[in-house]
Amino acid sequence: MTKFEKCWLNYSLVSEVSGWKDKLSCIFTNLDGKCIENAVKELRVAIPEIIGGNTPGMCICAPCVPSEGIVLKKYDKEDAEYYDDFCPGDEGYAIYYKTDKSLLVIAADTDRGILYGVFAFIRQLQKGITPDKMKIAESPKMPFRMIDHWDNMYGDIERGYSGNSFFYENYRIIIDDRTVFYARMMASIGINAIAINNVNVHQTETLLITDKYLYEVKRINDIFASYGIKLYLSVNYAAPVEMGDVDVSDPLDERVIKWWEKTSKHIYDVIPNFGGYLVKADSEGRPGPFTYGRTHADGANMLARQIAPYGGNVVWRCFVYNCRQDWRDHKTDRARAAYDNFIGLDGEFDDNVVLQIKNGPMDFQIREPVSPLFGGLKKTNMFLEVQIAQEYTGQQRHICYLVPMWKEILEFNTYASENGLVKDIVSGKAYGNTLCGLAAVTNTGNDANWTGHDMAAVNLYGYGRMCFDTELSAEEIGREWIRATFGNDIEINDAIYSMIGTSWHTYENYSSPLGIGWMVNPAGHYGPNVDGYEYDRWGTYHRSDCKGLGIDRSVATGTGYAGQYNEPWSSLYERPETTPEELLLFFHHMDYTYKLSSGKTIIQHIYDTHFKGVEEVETMINTWNSIKEKIDPNVFNRVADRLNIQLESAIDWRDRVNTYYLRMSGIADEKGRTIY
Amino acid sequence: MTKFEKCWLNYSLVSEVSGWKDKLSCIFTNLDGKCIENAVKELRVAIPEIIGGNTPGMCICAPCVPSEGIVLKKYDKEDAEYYDDFCPGDEGYAIYYKTDKSLLVIAADTDRGILYGVFAFIRQLQKGITPDKMKIAESPKMPFRMIDHWDNMYGDIERGYSGNSFFYENYRIIIDDRTVFYARMMASIGINAIAINNVNVHQTETLLITDKYLYEVKRINDIFASYGIKLYLSVNYAAPVEMGDVDVSDPLDERVIKWWEKTSKHIYDVIPNFGGYLVKADSEGRPGPFTYGRTHADGANMLARQIAPYGGNVVWRCFVYNCRQDWRDHKTDRARAAYDNFIGLDGEFDDNVVLQIKNGPMDFQIREPVSPLFGGLKKTNMFLEVQIAQEYTGQQRHICYLVPMWKEILEFNTYASENGLVKDIVSGKAYGNTLCGLAAVTNTGNDANWTGHDMAAVNLYGYGRMCFDTELSAEEIGREWIRATFGNDIEINDAIYSMIGTSWHTYENYSSPLGIGWMVNPAGHYGPNVDGYEYDRWGTYHRSDCKGLGIDRSVATGTGYAGQYNEPWSSLYERPETTPEELLLFFHHMDYTYKLSSGKTIIQHIYDTHFKGVEEVETMINTWNSIKEKIDPNVFNRVADRLNIQLESAIDWRDRVNTYYLRMSGIADEKGRTIY
Repeated sequence: MTKFEKCWLNYSLVSEVSGWKDKLSCIFTNLDGKCIENAVKELRVAIPEIIGGNTPGMCICAPCVPSEGIVLKKYDKEDAEYYDDFCPGDEGYAIYYKTDKSLLVIAADTDRGILYGVFAFIRQLQKGITPDKMKIAESPKMPFRMIDHWDNMYGDIERGYSGNSFFYENYRIIIDDRTVFYARMMASIGINAIAINNVNVHQTETLLITDKYLYEVKRINDIFASYGIKLYLSVNYAAPVEMGDVDVSDPLDERVIKWWEKTSKHIYDVIPNFGGYLVKADSEGRPGPFTYGRTHADGANMLARQIAPYGGNVVWRCFVYNCRQDWRDHKTDRARAAYDNFIGLDGEFDDNVVLQIKNGPMDFQIREPVSPLFGGLKKTNMFLEVQIAQEYTGQQRHICYLVPMWKEILEFNTYASENGLVKDIVSGKAYGNTLCGLAAVTNTGNDANWTGHDMAAVNLYGYGRMCFDTELSAEEIGREWIRATFGNDIEINDAIYSMIGTSWHTYENYSSPLGIGWMVNPAGHYGPNVDGYEYDRWGTYHRSDCKGLGIDRSVATGTGYAGQYNEPWSSLYERPETTPEELLLFFHHMDYTYKLSSGKTIIQHIYDTHFKGVEEVETMINTWNSIKEKIDPNVFNRVADRLNIQLESAIDWRDRVNTYYLRMSGIADEKGRTIY
Repeated sequence: MTKFEKCWLNYSLVSEVSGWKDKLSCIFTNLDGKCIENAVKELRVAIPEIIGGNTPGMCICAPCVPSEGIVLKKYDKEDAEYYDDFCPGDEGYAIYYKTDKSLLVIAADTDRGILYGVFAFIRQLQKGITPDKMKIAESPKMPFRMIDHWDNMYGDIERGYSGNSFFYENYRIIIDDRTVFYARMMASIGINAIAINNVNVHQTETLLITDKYLYEVKRINDIFASYGIKLYLSVNYAAPVEMGDVDVSDPLDERVIKWWEKTSKHIYDVIPNFGGYLVKADSEGRPGPFTYGRTHADGANMLARQIAPYGGNVVWRCFVYNCRQDWRDHKTDRARAAYDNFIGLDGEFDDNVVLQIKNGPMDFQIREPVSPLFGGLKKTNMFLEVQIAQEYTGQQRHICYLVPMWKEILEFNTYASENGLVKDIVSGKAYGNTLCGLAAVTNTGNDANWTGHDMAAVNLYGYGRMCFDTELSAEEIGREWIRATFGNDIEINDAIYSMIGTSWHTYENYSSPLGIGWMVNPAGHYGPNVDGYEYDRWGTYHRSDCKGLGIDRSVATGTGYAGQYNEPWSSLYERPETTPEELLLFFHHMDYTYKLSSGKTIIQHIYDTHFKGVEEVETMINTWNSIKEKIDPNVFNRVADRLNIQLESAIDWRDRVNTYYLRMSGIADEKGRTIY
């Protein structure tokens, strides 16, 4: 096992609550079960670390009338008096202080509710709120808060930037203290579903659903379950073929159906609380129902029916597009693909199928419009998929706080209905779904600090917290994470928040401009390469010439992508003047001399933002240096090293992009700065 | 062992000489030795296959007065009567017919001379020349005719496009029938030195000079020796360090000297006729004397002195440049590097050191000026290094006959002296050297046909033949190879020669224009990518902008590279008007609207040549189809498949380069053809 650190579970003393040492010295409960055990364990770790004093005692009392301490209990009419309209449901909890008995109460309908309540209580303590001031009743906004690992069993991680997998090594499953700590971390931010293997399911991983690995998977599953987390597996759509049992994987073929029926039954015999299947089909070379002339509904429903009897779900990715496009073909538009492939299937998916839709129509770029599928599908379960791993946003060598981006997406109004915000659609508010929420490609690995860059942990933390409570602002989440990780020093909090707060825009400033995306090195996706994908087969072009750049996606003269949106977006995106400027080049091919609302031309905007982005990184470095004395030297140096890498890379981006466009346009920088 | 074919040793019946069946039925000689044995063996294989009839008998006669047959004999005054001024020397031979005794005589001073004479005699037969008409006296023009293998012991070949190595597999040395056949092939074209491992010497290959592999190397050496070939090994300059024996590899350190002395002595104890060391030092990450502040002369001479007592040579590559250039740096010029690094050392190298100098200043591009080192060094042994492997010229998926290019280089007048042609410098004619000649990175692998593309064999064959006789024209060599490979059908000969004859220009037409080079995909070096290296660290730029492209290498305003040439080249290259047009963009940054001597602008020249190049490939395909009935179906299909690949790739080149420059320049094609 590699050494690991505690991230945001690195509890430290909070002076404001130090007076409560003696009053929280006992924990009472008459509940039992693994989640409850872990909740109690968490309190017994956290309280002495945050408040000081001894580890609290533990008292099983059924029924009893305790006084002074913490009570973990079933939510009942006694608690309801405190919260008239609150129904905790599957995952909610109430926290309040019973003054008459000097009791801090954490009440919930379920074990998971108690566990989440305990972590919420700890966060309150970390904020310096004393128990007598606590009064919270909360249920998570998103029913599903899923994490997708792109870990391969060899031990590598696709798009992993934090070392190797802590689940696998050399085709063996690893289960150790780190597995438990990971489950605890995920529970602390409310994650309730985790897929433990890459959506690109290779040869060995295809066998995870067989006896070769299933009993080991069950061991991870049981650890996850003890923290309220359902385990999912990515499956290979061609598994029946690859295992040599059936010569097709046609979803309508009786032999295929039987194969999955038998396989699924066995999985649930071994792991009765198994979450279900995650599937990337007909995508980037993966097999799928298209091979047999079947629809994705045929494909997904077939799997779904085999696991429905056991309460299992199928998570079906919508990342389906032609990845063999000819760059000379200006008509095909990859941005259209997800919508074109799935809109016609609305209403055809079974209840236990959910479509996992990437936030934008392309692939986790620094800036994309919101996928039009969210405003299109109405009778289909949907997950919004985001990427915590910084594949296109600096690969955890750059600071790029992504919660502000995700928040914008959640707040985007699709105008599909009265409750048309993306957050209302994927929370189930709009159409009453229960199998819905968010899924995210995670950024963890076996680096000691879990996420490579210490600052990248905020994205993992923030993802979970945002899913649980979409009403938290990005700043609230960010500052909460800083407090949990670096302690309560306000100077530290201000300094670090100033580094991360607008880092998304900083990255955008020095990378690809105005929504056009890409311009990265092929394959690796790190660092600038303006033409890196320009003549390639991936459908990701900028079509720069000596006059201008951008892709015309209007209905009138372009690929028609703008027409996939509901009004008024469809009309707004149709014309440059009404397209939000940050997406201008995504929707339109514009002259370099076009004037933006700032009064600047596009070419000058490119130059200015690229110089600005680098300056912003320099400011980050100065800020970090200013708190050097307050930061653990090991952490300080790790972050300092990556900041230097970020600066060098930002300069690289600045110079390559500016040079490319100076050479291409022939238009000099108004400010006469050095462009090569 | 993989299956292998006979290439140009695929002897077939020649009707013109069929009347000689009975008159060549006995071979007489009083010579012995392995080379003689192999010469006789070759005659006994070739004669029945070419003339028909039985395998000739063999008669050892010392001394004897044979009549009717073939005599292999020491060249003496009897032969000298026939050739007054001829002295065969180490490798020459005379062939003539003694009418009075009906004897075909092959006479030489050495075994190797006899062997080469035999292969020359066979070539004459293949041309349909009857023995009574034969009268040749020839010595090779180049003293050294070397082949460099870039084979790694894992079995892969750096820049290999014909399968894996036939020398190594999985870190083991392979010795089988193929090894012998290979030596025979090489002898048939006059190769007399072969380095059997990659100049990038990795961990395992470092051990080739140790007992772990040395006895196996000796077995290959002995096979080579029996065909007149010296075996060389590429050595790791840091070998003393890597083997853990000395902690430096400073060439002036006594411990290092002792290490090489001892190692070299042992090598020669085991392999007394070992050729010597080939060294790539201080190049692209390889270790070298620079590490210790020593010169390349220090480095090379130290090694040379350890093997001089045994007659060994050190071949020292001049491919030394800064491969970590910043693209923003317009002053550093990789083209200058070899000259700048070595010119100051002229006269400082020991007699058994030879500098191996790439033909151009960059790296085997489709078009480069001749390296100015050939005109600069005067007191230094030199090899001209060319690349038979088509790294940058289509990777044996494209037809690209390279002999015409090499011939141009050999005929280039450096104006260094009266005998200033490159061929006179590397043949020893100019300065009287004996350790000089050519070396070439070979294109072989374990594909059945040896060279991947059947047509690529002409480059291997042609290299050897050209080294032996620099006065042969590219057409003579090409047609000779066609005859040896495909038989004597004149229609086949014309068709295939029309396909290969100008294929170098065809490749140039559809790839990078006017000497600028590169524009390839990084790392793999196959296929177009105009900006592939433009912002990279390799010093290989085109600096295209909306006005023009090219690198200013003049003395007055550029990098000064033009000044590395003798007059008149220095002045000619200094100005665009006097620079040979095919090198215009190598020496100057020119506007797209500059008029070439054809009357075309540069931009129109780019468009036209790229369309033309594709048309020429289409013609190649038609020509190949026209002789389908006459070609072995296996060979026909192999070549047809590659021609289709070439066409697709040529179209890719055409469209990417034309589109790039249309977008960049904004200048339309005068002929209105489709550019994307």
